[in-house]
Amino acid sequence: MPDVLAYATDNRSCQFHRTTITRREPDPTEIYFEIKYAGICHSDIHTAREEWGPAIFPLVPGHELAGVVTQVGDQVTRFAVGDRVGVGCFVDSCGQCEQCRAGFEQFCTGRPGTIWTYNSVGRDGLPTAGGYSQGITVEQDYALRLPESIPFDAVAPLMCAGVTLYSPLKRWGAGPGKKVAIVGMGGLGHVGVQIAAKMGAEVSVVSQTKSKQADGRRFGAQHYYAWNEPDELKAVRGTFDLMVSTVAAATDLDALLRFLKPGGALVDVGLPEHASTVHLSSLTGGNKILAGSQIGGIAETQEMLDFCAEHGVVPQVEIISGEEITAAYDNVVSSAVRYRYVIDTSTF
Amino acid sequence: MPDVLAYATDNRSCQFHRTTITRREPDPTEIYFEIKYAGICHSDIHTAREEWGPAIFPLVPGHELAGVVTQVGDQVTRFAVGDRVGVGCFVDSCGQCEQCRAGFEQFCTGRPGTIWTYNSVGRDGLPTAGGYSQGITVEQDYALRLPESIPFDAVAPLMCAGVTLYSPLKRWGAGPGKKVAIVGMGGLGHVGVQIAAKMGAEVSVVSQTKSKQADGRRFGAQHYYAWNEPDELKAVRGTFDLMVSTVAAATDLDALLRFLKPGGALVDVGLPEHASTVHLSSLTGGNKILAGSQIGGIAETQEMLDFCAEHGVVPQVEIISGEEITAAYDNVVSSAVRYRYVIDTSTF
Repeated sequence: MPDVLAYATDNRSCQFHRTTITRREPDPTEIYFEIKYAGICHSDIHTAREEWGPAIFPLVPGHELAGVVTQVGDQVTRFAVGDRVGVGCFVDSCGQCEQCRAGFEQFCTGRPGTIWTYNSVGRDGLPTAGGYSQGITVEQDYALRLPESIPFDAVAPLMCAGVTLYSPLKRWGAGPGKKVAIVGMGGLGHVGVQIAAKMGAEVSVVSQTKSKQADGRRFGAQHYYAWNEPDELKAVRGTFDLMVSTVAAATDLDALLRFLKPGGALVDVGLPEHASTVHLSSLTGGNKILAGSQIGGIAETQEMLDFCAEHGVVPQVEIISGEEITAAYDNVVSSAVRYRYVIDTSTF
Repeated sequence: MPDVLAYATDNRSCQFHRTTITRREPDPTEIYFEIKYAGICHSDIHTAREEWGPAIFPLVPGHELAGVVTQVGDQVTRFAVGDRVGVGCFVDSCGQCEQCRAGFEQFCTGRPGTIWTYNSVGRDGLPTAGGYSQGITVEQDYALRLPESIPFDAVAPLMCAGVTLYSPLKRWGAGPGKKVAIVGMGGLGHVGVQIAAKMGAEVSVVSQTKSKQADGRRFGAQHYYAWNEPDELKAVRGTFDLMVSTVAAATDLDALLRFLKPGGALVDVGLPEHASTVHLSSLTGGNKILAGSQIGGIAETQEMLDFCAEHGVVPQVEIISGEEITAAYDNVVSSAVRYRYVIDTSTF
């Protein structure tokens, strides 16, 4: 049973401290890998601050893991020692239900249901612990191959942010001839702009201000609009085929829906704490669509990684140490990070 | 310029009285037809009571028209004197914009935009007047062929209620192997149940009570659930591929979305006066969809009529006289009507 260093918080104050956690020996179909890098996702913060409900403390968050395999069970066929692997938001599911079989393991309806990478209870009955640690044991079917062409220290955020944007962009038809808007250009949005552009869409960013406009252009956006320049925004009402909202705060949905063409879709991937309001007439007028999207299944996550490798999609990250996690949380919430923090676990 | 008898209201009190209105002589591409039957739609009431904003009085509502052609312009090719024709919610649009060319004339973005059958301003600058009258002049491209096999006195409600349900059921994949729920079984819903069943779906009704259960079965529903029997309803959470909500009051969207399978769609066709609330997590959890749908274009309306003729879909109507319109409005709002009032204009 390997003991590994980790960073945990004991309560919702999110004061992270170094600790030691125990990982299990790999079963025959499991691998153990040394986590080298772990992204910090806004979901980590919502969870650890208990904004989404009670959390299991001490909590080791992190669902954007990148590492190197050091041990494999004797029935493991998909990975070998030395492989670069990643883990995203979940580490297990029933594998048998309609959703699992259709590649939506994140919506598993069987038992025990989707087991999340942290703040969940594993098959062994113990709380799961996430990526802010130096190693993890996981079923081979829930680990992903990380293409070597993606810089190792920047790949981790693709495990959540990457697939969170790739999945709705693909499902809702981003591609040549389509006008796609990414609402909010933070940790999620800055990856979404790149992916949508590489899919061939004409990409716009809709942000609070134009402070990140130069970055947006660099990521592939052809247009950049800001809520604080409303006249310019008004001019593009009724023009987008697809909008993906990455905003984690309750939004004026009626205002957003106005920017869609008839038949267009506004897909939300953010998770506001509170309810939003919408006039249903904002949807009926123009056969419009408001949809939600939550990460992606294993096969789609692999497809996303391969797409990003082929097209040079790379998250822009700031590498931090374990001791910097506590301060990093505030910077994520205030949108000061450009654009994703990645923890270097060798600093533990 | 033919003068025709009509029923109008002079203000939002909706006290209808007999009056005379003037229709224009048909242009070369127009037809004139004698309206024989006109359905009363809940939208008529919302409009006439000014629940959706100011109306143009005196107002002759009605956008479910069925009649017989008595005059054609000399360039008319699609209709001949004696044909049974119908008109729905709109009588004109630009015909040139992207939406019109795609068959969504109801979302015309050109000039003058979609001209509604009543409470709109026509190309001639005069207010339009609807179906509660004995005749109307209309462009041939905005009139529909009414199949003779559908009983003439029951066909009018298909012009709005029929296409309002047909369009989302078709677009969102109602068919064999799909579990479809119709929420609310009134004027819209009772046609939706029939259409969804004839499309081959396994149809459920979700209603306030089970008072209309026998009718629901007769219309083709295999299951009938009621909000006032919550235990039975709870058992079907997470099971519907598609729900079409015909409810015209603000709804607990979170509660409805719980009944969808992952990936399922809740399509609203009702038009509540007030905003609804929704937690976006009700959509993200399960990649769910909340969409709106508003009637259908001309080609789709004809397709719907032909489908209903082929499959024996017939609205269940109560025929009333002009003098009964005033009282009928209250019965529609209180859901006392079974299931659609149709005005017989020979009583004027």
